[in-house]
Amino acid sequence: MSAPPAAVLVPAGGAADAEPMPVRGREPEQESSTQMSHRLQAYSDALLSIIATVMILPVAHTKVHPDQKLGESVQQLLLTKIAVYLMTFLIVTVAWTAHVRLFQVIELIDDVLALLNLACMMVITFLPYTFSLMASFPEVPFGIFLFSVCAIVIGLIQAVIVVYGFHHPHLLNQDINSVNHDACKHHILKIILRGPALCFLAAISSFFFIPLSYVFLGLVIVLPHLTRFLMWCKTKIVGQRDEEEEQHSSETFTFYLSEPLSKERVEAFSDGVYAIVATLLICDICEDNVADPRDVEEKFHGSLLEALSEYGPNYLAYFGSFVTIGLLWFVHHSLFLYVIKPTRLMGLLNIFSLAFIGGLPLAYQLTSEFAEKSHNEIEAIQVSCVITFFASIFQFAIWTTALLHERETLHPFARYGGKEHAFMFAKLALYPCVSLGAFFLTCLLSEFSTAVFHLMQIVIPFAFLALRIFVRISLTVIKSVMSLSRQKVVLLEEEEACLSPTETLS
Amino acid sequence: MSAPPAAVLVPAGGAADAEPMPVRGREPEQESSTQMSHRLQAYSDALLSIIATVMILPVAHTKVHPDQKLGESVQQLLLTKIAVYLMTFLIVTVAWTAHVRLFQVIELIDDVLALLNLACMMVITFLPYTFSLMASFPEVPFGIFLFSVCAIVIGLIQAVIVVYGFHHPHLLNQDINSVNHDACKHHILKIILRGPALCFLAAISSFFFIPLSYVFLGLVIVLPHLTRFLMWCKTKIVGQRDEEEEQHSSETFTFYLSEPLSKERVEAFSDGVYAIVATLLICDICEDNVADPRDVEEKFHGSLLEALSEYGPNYLAYFGSFVTIGLLWFVHHSLFLYVIKPTRLMGLLNIFSLAFIGGLPLAYQLTSEFAEKSHNEIEAIQVSCVITFFASIFQFAIWTTALLHERETLHPFARYGGKEHAFMFAKLALYPCVSLGAFFLTCLLSEFSTAVFHLMQIVIPFAFLALRIFVRISLTVIKSVMSLSRQKVVLLEEEEACLSPTETLS
Repeated sequence: MSAPPAAVLVPAGGAADAEPMPVRGREPEQESSTQMSHRLQAYSDALLSIIATVMILPVAHTKVHPDQKLGESVQQLLLTKIAVYLMTFLIVTVAWTAHVRLFQVIELIDDVLALLNLACMMVITFLPYTFSLMASFPEVPFGIFLFSVCAIVIGLIQAVIVVYGFHHPHLLNQDINSVNHDACKHHILKIILRGPALCFLAAISSFFFIPLSYVFLGLVIVLPHLTRFLMWCKTKIVGQRDEEEEQHSSETFTFYLSEPLSKERVEAFSDGVYAIVATLLICDICEDNVADPRDVEEKFHGSLLEALSEYGPNYLAYFGSFVTIGLLWFVHHSLFLYVIKPTRLMGLLNIFSLAFIGGLPLAYQLTSEFAEKSHNEIEAIQVSCVITFFASIFQFAIWTTALLHERETLHPFARYGGKEHAFMFAKLALYPCVSLGAFFLTCLLSEFSTAVFHLMQIVIPFAFLALRIFVRISLTVIKSVMSLSRQKVVLLEEEEACLSPTETLS
Repeated sequence: MSAPPAAVLVPAGGAADAEPMPVRGREPEQESSTQMSHRLQAYSDALLSIIATVMILPVAHTKVHPDQKLGESVQQLLLTKIAVYLMTFLIVTVAWTAHVRLFQVIELIDDVLALLNLACMMVITFLPYTFSLMASFPEVPFGIFLFSVCAIVIGLIQAVIVVYGFHHPHLLNQDINSVNHDACKHHILKIILRGPALCFLAAISSFFFIPLSYVFLGLVIVLPHLTRFLMWCKTKIVGQRDEEEEQHSSETFTFYLSEPLSKERVEAFSDGVYAIVATLLICDICEDNVADPRDVEEKFHGSLLEALSEYGPNYLAYFGSFVTIGLLWFVHHSLFLYVIKPTRLMGLLNIFSLAFIGGLPLAYQLTSEFAEKSHNEIEAIQVSCVITFFASIFQFAIWTTALLHERETLHPFARYGGKEHAFMFAKLALYPCVSLGAFFLTCLLSEFSTAVFHLMQIVIPFAFLALRIFVRISLTVIKSVMSLSRQKVVLLEEEEACLSPTETLS
């Protein structure tokens, strides 16, 4: 088909210019079955972000005995379920990054590619199950074997997609069409198949010596960084022989981790994580906090209101948690509005931030479970504060990283001295400050309770609304102080000049 | 800020032209805090689609006793949980439609609007809980009262958004800026506040006579259709006085249900539903089908493989269901590739289709639970077939509805006689045919089992790949038959012409 109707999004790759990019009209293709890959990408983003986050559910649903101390039970959780969650999250984000790279090379799709992509998605969604097996049976090789097989299948499907894409050159990114085909294809295939090869070794070694297969799997994640580091060392030792090569690779598609990610896909993936986390909360509340009709009859003499008032703290916890997630999304949204090109490091920090966002349902579960005054309650609040703090401080880190290369990564408004710079800073600093403050309050005040904590969460949106006014006032104060002091300096200089005209002349 | 960098999506409203719409570059705004609303819309779509679908979980997790007959337990389910699921789905889609309309009027946002929208989302995500209360305690007015209060709050927040938008005209759709502001504002506010007013009546009447409040709530959904129907009747009786008014309203924003929906948002909402349904499956498998380490030790003498082989049918069920969901998404994707403008009826049919898609986790749960040969097993397969059939037949209905007004709704390729018409037809007809076929097979063959059913599901992708070849062959056969018969006609005519040259001359 020709370019599809109304508002087509050509994946923007690493467009470094701040101007809205004109939609690249592609010529009507030879085959009518060719399609833009935009919606395929959006669907994959949604699937992958949900899969990455949804494994927090088994963590959050682990029952903690009220008479147990929270410290011990948290340690129990840490052992298996949190490990499963974090491993799933990291591996799925690695798969997502590979997917982003792949579809920066392949711009158009047809039915075969769409079906291949769905097959790839199916195997990726099966990964969490293999992790559950690995975590529950760390001594049995089967879990790690199954995982390796899945990883090999994913790699092979991606290789087939690449081969298919290069066999139908009209599907490829137009920048590739101009350069040497075969070299590019071999380069990409080599990088893609490196993972499955290592997983194959891991699968075989799982039967002999399990730690060795973990080493191989770790290598899959570390290898791209390692080769880059080695290359960097080589450059430092041998000299600048490498520069030419790098220039070449920036023309074609390096397929390396250092390539900037497509901004739309980073946003889409983050949106998916925020959305699923926000909705997991109501799912919990609907399953746990609807009173049993028989209970209402027996215990509360048929008064539903009385029965529900028992759940009061849960509602407060729900609204508090929802507000926190919503506002963290809001901060993320405000930040990425001014980001032009997310670099590799920013993408990594974003994934760390999202991993903590995914932990928020756990925080909700903890604070809603221990509503009475106890040692556990304080610890639950502290865990919530820590999760919120790390989620927000990584957002702040994205911002500082962006500022380091502000010319390439940020919109002029957000750079040093830009219109929005101070306000952006205040927005990003609010949550780290508040969560740190709440954490120290729990240490100082013994009366601090979950109710107070959740009320604090609900009040914060007003802080955001007041923030702009606050920033403006403080900016004017700073400016007037600065101008006053400068006036003083000017006056002093003038005085000096009046007093000693001879000195200045001499 | 000025237009944000790289690939900005201006909501396309009802663009009737097949040409890719150029991105409308808006001038740098007066206030630097103004932002495109694209990402806000995408996030809202993700939230609303997940909320609409996630209420299938309590339905799917209802434990059915294996010794009970499925018929009875299905009836038990039907009573409350399925009702909650369907009500949530329909009301959330109504809220989503209102949200789409609202942000067709308001094109740019600032921080205040973003926060107001988040508040609106928070109340919408709370709606499923009020339904759970209503379904569990149908005789207590509190559930319906709480629901009405939520609906009123949502309506009021939307009204505030409209008032705020009209107070800052640079945020509005540029088409509105040119016409009479105040009339437009009052028109939109009147339509938005009609719902809360009815909900207010429902809330009050819930304390006196509950059925009356259900009538009021039903009226909220039916009213727009009703007024339209009355208007249509009036036009028929009085004459064409109404036409002028309609022309006026098509210039401004009618805010009526008949307005075409933005295609991107229909796609985004559908993607969200498909993605969450696909991932709910793996969530179930991870929670239920990881063997207990102690069980493995005791029952299977430490052999994990043996323990897991018990779950064999579940894996098959998982892959089968995932393939079905993936392919239904694939069909939806193929269909909307050629849709230019989704009309109101198409949007409605799409929502019906999605409601059945949301039922697929239930189908998975049923078919994986009754893996042994029993009467229940056959019934579980039949339920799965029925759900798949309705999900796909509504997709087919979207296509036929689009064909009725093919000039406005479809891309030339997909119209009658277009390049892709026959293939599209075959794609859309595949699932209804297969599910109907499977249903009748269960009636005829007593040996038909879930294993066979899931293997059928897994094989279908190859049917899709073969479909194009099949359609081409059949088209050539039809054409050659047609041309043969035409040749005969031509030959006959020629013979006639040869035999009676005088007649043609006379």
